[in-house]
This record gives sequence, C-alpha cells and structure tokens, in this order.
Amino acid sequence: MMNGNAAEEKEPFRPMDAEQLRKYGHKMVDFIADYYKSIEQFPVLSQVQPGYLKDHLPNAAPDQPEEFQDVLDDITKKIIPGVTHWQSPNFFGYFSASGSIAGFLGEMLCSGLNTIGFNWITFPASTELEITVLDWLAKLLNLPEKFLSSGHGGGIIQGTASEALVIVLLAARDKILGRIGRNSMDKLVVYSSDQVHSFLKKSCQIVGIHSRNFRVLQTDASSSYGIDPRNLDQAIHDDMEAGLIPFFLCATVGTTSSAAVDPLVEIGQIAEEYGMWFHVDAAYAGNACICPEYRHYLDGVEYADSFGMNPYKWLLTNFNGSCLWVKDQRDLVNSLGTNPEYLANKISRENKFVDFKDMEIPLGRRFRSLKLWMVFRLYGAENLKEHIRNHIKLARQFEELVRSDNRFEIVCPTLFSLVCFRLLPRNEDDGGYELNSELLDAVNSTGKLFFTHTIISGKYIFRFSIGATLTEERHIRESWKVIQNQATIISRKFTLQSKN
Amino acid sequence: MMNGNAAEEKEPFRPMDAEQLRKYGHKMVDFIADYYKSIEQFPVLSQVQPGYLKDHLPNAAPDQPEEFQDVLDDITKKIIPGVTHWQSPNFFGYFSASGSIAGFLGEMLCSGLNTIGFNWITFPASTELEITVLDWLAKLLNLPEKFLSSGHGGGIIQGTASEALVIVLLAARDKILGRIGRNSMDKLVVYSSDQVHSFLKKSCQIVGIHSRNFRVLQTDASSSYGIDPRNLDQAIHDDMEAGLIPFFLCATVGTTSSAAVDPLVEIGQIAEEYGMWFHVDAAYAGNACICPEYRHYLDGVEYADSFGMNPYKWLLTNFNGSCLWVKDQRDLVNSLGTNPEYLANKISRENKFVDFKDMEIPLGRRFRSLKLWMVFRLYGAENLKEHIRNHIKLARQFEELVRSDNRFEIVCPTLFSLVCFRLLPRNEDDGGYELNSELLDAVNSTGKLFFTHTIISGKYIFRFSIGATLTEERHIRESWKVIQNQATIISRKFTLQSKN
Repeated sequence: MMNGNAAEEKEPFRPMDAEQLRKYGHKMVDFIADYYKSIEQFPVLSQVQPGYLKDHLPNAAPDQPEEFQDVLDDITKKIIPGVTHWQSPNFFGYFSASGSIAGFLGEMLCSGLNTIGFNWITFPASTELEITVLDWLAKLLNLPEKFLSSGHGGGIIQGTASEALVIVLLAARDKILGRIGRNSMDKLVVYSSDQVHSFLKKSCQIVGIHSRNFRVLQTDASSSYGIDPRNLDQAIHDDMEAGLIPFFLCATVGTTSSAAVDPLVEIGQIAEEYGMWFHVDAAYAGNACICPEYRHYLDGVEYADSFGMNPYKWLLTNFNGSCLWVKDQRDLVNSLGTNPEYLANKISRENKFVDFKDMEIPLGRRFRSLKLWMVFRLYGAENLKEHIRNHIKLARQFEELVRSDNRFEIVCPTLFSLVCFRLLPRNEDDGGYELNSELLDAVNSTGKLFFTHTIISGKYIFRFSIGATLTEERHIRESWKVIQNQATIISRKFTLQSKN
Repeated sequence: MMNGNAAEEKEPFRPMDAEQLRKYGHKMVDFIADYYKSIEQFPVLSQVQPGYLKDHLPNAAPDQPEEFQDVLDDITKKIIPGVTHWQSPNFFGYFSASGSIAGFLGEMLCSGLNTIGFNWITFPASTELEITVLDWLAKLLNLPEKFLSSGHGGGIIQGTASEALVIVLLAARDKILGRIGRNSMDKLVVYSSDQVHSFLKKSCQIVGIHSRNFRVLQTDASSSYGIDPRNLDQAIHDDMEAGLIPFFLCATVGTTSSAAVDPLVEIGQIAEEYGMWFHVDAAYAGNACICPEYRHYLDGVEYADSFGMNPYKWLLTNFNGSCLWVKDQRDLVNSLGTNPEYLANKISRENKFVDFKDMEIPLGRRFRSLKLWMVFRLYGAENLKEHIRNHIKLARQFEELVRSDNRFEIVCPTLFSLVCFRLLPRNEDDGGYELNSELLDAVNSTGKLFFTHTIISGKYIFRFSIGATLTEERHIRESWKVIQNQATIISRKFTLQSKN
C-alpha cells in the first residue's frame, strides 16, 4: 500500500504523502460513517470467546506492505466482532463514552497535527487553548473564582480521573510532608466513603500511603450512600487521638456504583477545619452540573483544593481527557516539576506560562483541548445542557418502567442518568446475587443491550447507565422489554429449581 | 452546525448523525491533507508571543452552535499560527513525533469506535490485538523469550515512557518491600547515569523513594556518556556498607541528551548479582534496533526485568503509546490491580486474560494497538527498517557537513539519527553557552528549521535530531546552510564585542 506500484522500479518509501493521506483518509471516514449507520445491527457486547483473535492473525509482523483494502476487510471480519460497542444506543454499561462528530473531528485534527506539546514553545496554541477552554468549562460549571486561570489556580487536562487523583494525592502528600517532615509519611491518613472509586486505593498505593491509613467510611441508604459528616468527624478525631495525621479527603459527586453524592458543604467544612486537602471527584455527575438545576450538587466545592470531571463521560467529547482544576497550581509543580536543560527555553525560564508537563505524570501530551473547544463551538452550551437533560429524562422514563413491574425494585434514587434496580429475589440469602447475575448474563448474551452491575449494602444491583450519544426513547423501551422477557424466563427457572 | 437549519422548527439535537459525520469528516481529511501539502510554508517554530490567543477568543463558551466552516477558519487563523510544526520536515528538535498515514488512520478509527477497553469484555479485540502486536514488535526487536506473552511476561502499551517508568519502579518497590518490610522504604536506592531522563527523578518522587537515595552516576566522554560498570559496582558497594538497599537500576539505550548507550551486559550482570530490578529505557533508540545491524545495542536486555520503547518517536506511529515489556506481569498486577464489583465479570474472575487496567495507572484505555497493527501491515517490517536506515544515513550526511566546517565540532559519536555538535567558542569560560544559545535562537527565529540543545560535561551542545517522517536530504542541506549563515553573523558580532 501507499508505496506506488510494486511492479515498477523501487520508489522511495513515502509514509506521509498528502494525496495518499487524502485518499485513504476519505475511505476511513466512509468506513466510520458506515459503522455508525449500521451500529444497531451489532451485538452490543462482543460475542467472541477469549483467545478468538490469535487464530486469525499471523504470529509475526509482515515483512512486506499489504493493501489498504485488505486491512480494512480484516477490521470488518476480525476486529469488529471483537468490539463491545460503546457507541451503540443500547450500551448502558459502566458510565458511557460520550462521542460526537465534533469530538471525533477534534481527535482527528489532533492526530493529524501529531504534536507533542509538553511546554509552551513546543506548541503555544495547545497550552493557551487548554487554559481558555478549561476556564470556559469552569464558568459553565459555575466553579469558584479560585479555579480560574486568573490567579494561582487553573485547569489542566489529564488522561483520566485516575491520573488526576494520583497527582492531587501526591501534591497533598508533599505539601504536608514539607511542613511536618518526611518521617511522618506513615502517619498520613486518607478519608473517603466506601462508595469511592477503587482508584483512590490504587492511588494511595502508588504514592506510598500506608494501606492501614486508608479510611473507608461506611455509608448506607439512610444517607443515600453519601458520607455522614458525623462519621467523618469521629474518624478524624479517633485518628488524631492515635497520633495519626488526617491530610486528604476525597468526596464524590456521582459515585460509580449508584451516582450518590457526598454532602460537600458539611464535609468540606470539616476538611477546612483540620487543614486537609479536599478533592472533589465529579467524573460523571459533574457533567450534569452545567445545567443550573443540577448545580446545587456542587455546592460546597468552594471548600475544595481540587475538582475533577470527565467530559468524555457525558459531554460529547471523545475519550480520553479528564479535566482537573486546582486552586493552586504551584502545589502540583512542587511535586511534579522538572527542569532538565534539554527542555529549557526562554519562555519556561521566565515563567510566562506554566509548563503543563510540570502538572502531570507524562512528559509528552496530546492536543486534547482542541476537541473540547470544538464541542463547545459546534454545539453551544445550550445544546449540551439539552443533551444532559434529555438523558436524565430518559432515565426517569426507564425508572417508571421498572416501577411499573412489581417483580423489580428501584434501589437508589435516580439523581442523574443512572438507574439502580434489581429483580426481587425470593429471599435475601445471597442478596439476590444468583438470580440477578443470571439475569444480567442472559440479557447481555442476547446482544440487544449491555448493562452492568454492582453490589451495594450486600445486594446485587443492576446499573442501567444512560449516556450513549445515540440513545433515544425507543432504545430504552425495547431494552426494558428484553429485560422483562429474560426475567420471566429466569424467574421460572428459579421457581422450578426451588421446587425440586 | 450539524443541527439542521436554524430557521426551521427546532429539531432534536443530533450530535452523532452518520451522514453528518461523513460530510464533516471528509472536510477535515481535506483540511489535514492540505496542511501536509503546505507544511513547508509555515515557520517550524511558532512565532507567536506568549498570551497571543487570549485576545482572539471570547472569555466564555458560546451558548449557540457555530458553523463548521467558521471553526475551521479559526483553526487556520488562530490555532495554526500557534503550532510548532512537529511534522515539518525541518523539525529537528527533541526526539521527533513520528507520524504516518497508517498511524493517522489507526488513530482515526480508534476515536471513531470511541471505546474504553479497560478489561477483556469491554473490548476483547483491543486486549487481544495489543498482546499480538507487542509480541510482533518484541520479535522484530529480537527480545528474549521471557518478554513474549507465552509465559508470565508480555507487553502493554502505556501512554508515555514516563508512565511506564513510574509503574515499573512501583512494581520493583512493592516487590522488595514485600520481602523486607515496608519500614525499609527509606533505605531503597535507585541507580542510573547522570544522562538519564529527568522523569526517573520524577518517578522516584511519585512513588516515594527518598531523594537522597537517587544515585546519579557521573559519565563522561571516556565512556561515551554510558555508565562505567566499575562506578556502579562501587556505588552499590558503598550503599550496602551504609546499610542501604540497592533495588532498581535504570539503563538507557539512546539517552535524551546525546543518544548514549549504557553497557547493558556489564551493568545487567551487576543488577542480577545484587538482585535489583533492571529496567532498560530505549524510548528513542530502541526503534533502530529492529534493524539487525543496530540490534547489538540491546545486547544484555536478557538481564532486564522490563524494557520500554516508544514507536511514536521513530516508527511512524502517531503519538501517543509507549511499549513496555516485563518479564513477569504479575509484578505489575500486584501493585496496580484492583477488583471492584462494578467491574467484575466472568472472564476477569477466571483469569482467562489479564486485565490491562491492572498494569497501568489509568483505568480507561484507548485502542492504541490498532495504529501499531496498521503501521506494521500497511508498511511491512522491511520498509520500517528502510525508514530507520534512511534517517541514520541523513544523520551521517549532516555530520559530514558539520565536520567540513572547522568553526564547528561534533561532540559525541553519532550512533543513530541524533547529531550533537556546537560552534567552537573563543574560550570555554561558559562552555560556549552564550555563543551557541544565541546561534540557536537566531536559527530557530528564522522559522526555517527548529532544533534544540542540551548541556553535557558543562558544554552547551546542539541536538540535531532527525526523525520527522518528511525529512529528506534537501532539508538537511538547506538547514545546514541556514545554520552556517547565522553562525557567520553571530561570530562576527561576538568578535566585535570582544574587541570593544
């Protein structure tokens, strides 16, 4: 491919010829447009068996080039069957990957320019657009002034919320150790609810917080799975009595299991009182807070040292890119800054612009602000709000469908677009695990929709998460029918089993 | 845009319509193809002043959608002037961002599918293709069997080499602490040469290795800036005498400053003797080792616990994606594995496939193996080798040009495609800093080419790094002329100054 006619005299190898890029680029655009056109025909959850691909591929790279069409055919025949279709309107698993044309075009141009803009001079527009766009988003979210770029605060796009959490935890660690001395490392204590994402524990492991100092505050239905401030206060008090040092509190707005919201005002005040770093992770539900009617879930963010949300979860911005704001960027730079001579330049030296490389783990960085900027401009804030509201409306409709069938129950309040429900078991011996996990497998195996589960308070719960860009009311209704039908089959089987 | 005619009745908001994706996708492909067609017309280093973009953009996101053409025009007028053109054939800074049509198409399809494949069931083809493609690349590099997926070892694509280094350092830390106890954390010592990339120090900071335990072994011209094994042995010996615990050695094949190579066999044997984790970072020069005649630089990698290289630096694979191989993936999983119920599934439970999320910091991951697979298939291994050889040939030609002008000197041997040279100063008082930095600024300010510098053994050195896909012999020759002309002007100025 892309190298003239093999039969001719050997031509120089030209892997970046503008006209070939045009030709094959158009073909790939058509391939992707056709994919979206036919996306509902694929089983949402890939139906392949583990190890399926091995037999389809040679065990070494080819020595000679192959034709583009052959590769495209292989993508259709070998790769696509192994895709779980996150962009399908019937994808309701995890939290969604919110794609759009604008996000796709932004990603395309990003790879086309193929820059590595780790500091200002390596790509001035990348640094400056990132600052601008994160100010835009901060304003849409009505974040406190301290998170805007005008002072010492500001935003930066990390890869994912995990990376964002690692670096704020690190900055908080180094900030307090700088005050009290490195020897106190093993006294540092981190707090969160038991609903916090597993990556908090992982982040603690990475930056060396002792596992026995990771406080997981139990939650239950009485506080809608948010942290009870009294429990937090008590835990801090106990730890200080024991000679430990509380230094980091992670709150969640929209937990992974049930989209629960921690009470930011109350626990933020506690964090302030004890001088702890307060991080608010709103990876999913933060997106909804661009709508004024949901903004109150962020009340209390004014106590936060850092705040993060992922536009790729709901705001039509193709994966990846996690937006992180801190009230003082210098805290990140203190922990992550480097200054080798081979990257030195006048602009960095004069501190005219922060080098984003000094506020993240990777050195090299992609031009991720571009797609976010294109999403804002090509859709406008009003449409983005409409998009969020539409998904929340669909979630309410789905919740109504579940409520109308008394075999099922809604387990948690539907605050956003995640509906938590389950098929009521005969008894609670296993928290409904066997019955519901079998139902989940049965539904997902149909290929007609895909959703996932969690366990809350010992109960096996379905997570039906609406967020795929293409999802409309008909997909909700048809998916519900599939779930109902499979429930009938599974329930009958369980009844028969219990009779035998 | 993309939302029907504004004058009509309000239509539902459709951010993912296949035909609109096709239409705008084609326009964006043309925009990018045209960019490559005219790429030599842009100044390589962006000529904008810090803060230039602020005045060009509104200070809040628009409420209403804008036209696609207006956004594209803004990209041309406002963004492109702020781009430092890494894809220009006259870009010789840092190490290059190696783009290609195949890499671009792979990235395009990756964003089109827009999946988040963190474990097998979320995207089986992604997990399986990544395993296959990293086996292919390992074989091309003739890596030892232990790095192939057939046993406990295998490859994984990280974002960048920085992230790869953090996680192997973490795995090594936890492995030894698991044996000797967490209390020994502050006794752990890391070794590398003084030429190692700054991200080793940063990685130590992240995972909590005490800064006083980061041993930087001095190198000089006598060992071509590679580690002297006797110095390493001595340092380890001294540290053990002092009650410290050597646990991690980082070797580099192709250092950032001068592409120096550490003697892997000798130092690998030392690492083995003392039971240290031995990591080999070949981010740049590892690419050359797909050619049999350069493979000897990796001799000794058989002692390594982990090995990394970045195909985006030279192997026509658009940024990002850093390939990391470890001899035992369980070491990564022990440090980075999580198992929350909301991600649980049968395949993960049965350990049929490793979940790549358990071998990296982020949870979500892009389908990065796709572009690498497309590069291999669309170009073939032989062309990739030709590509490497061609750049090395150009580097030799450039070196000859430098040698033919006795105002300049070549400072380090040109092993790969990086040429290190400088304009000889009148005296060495400042290591030639003033003279050469002024020359660098003068050349880069012309916009005709861009290259960078470093400091080695107190001397200011130019790094002329060949790796941009479009670079041909004429670009080398013309760039050299610009450097010579500017050298004449600067030298005259310095002579006049010294007379005054």
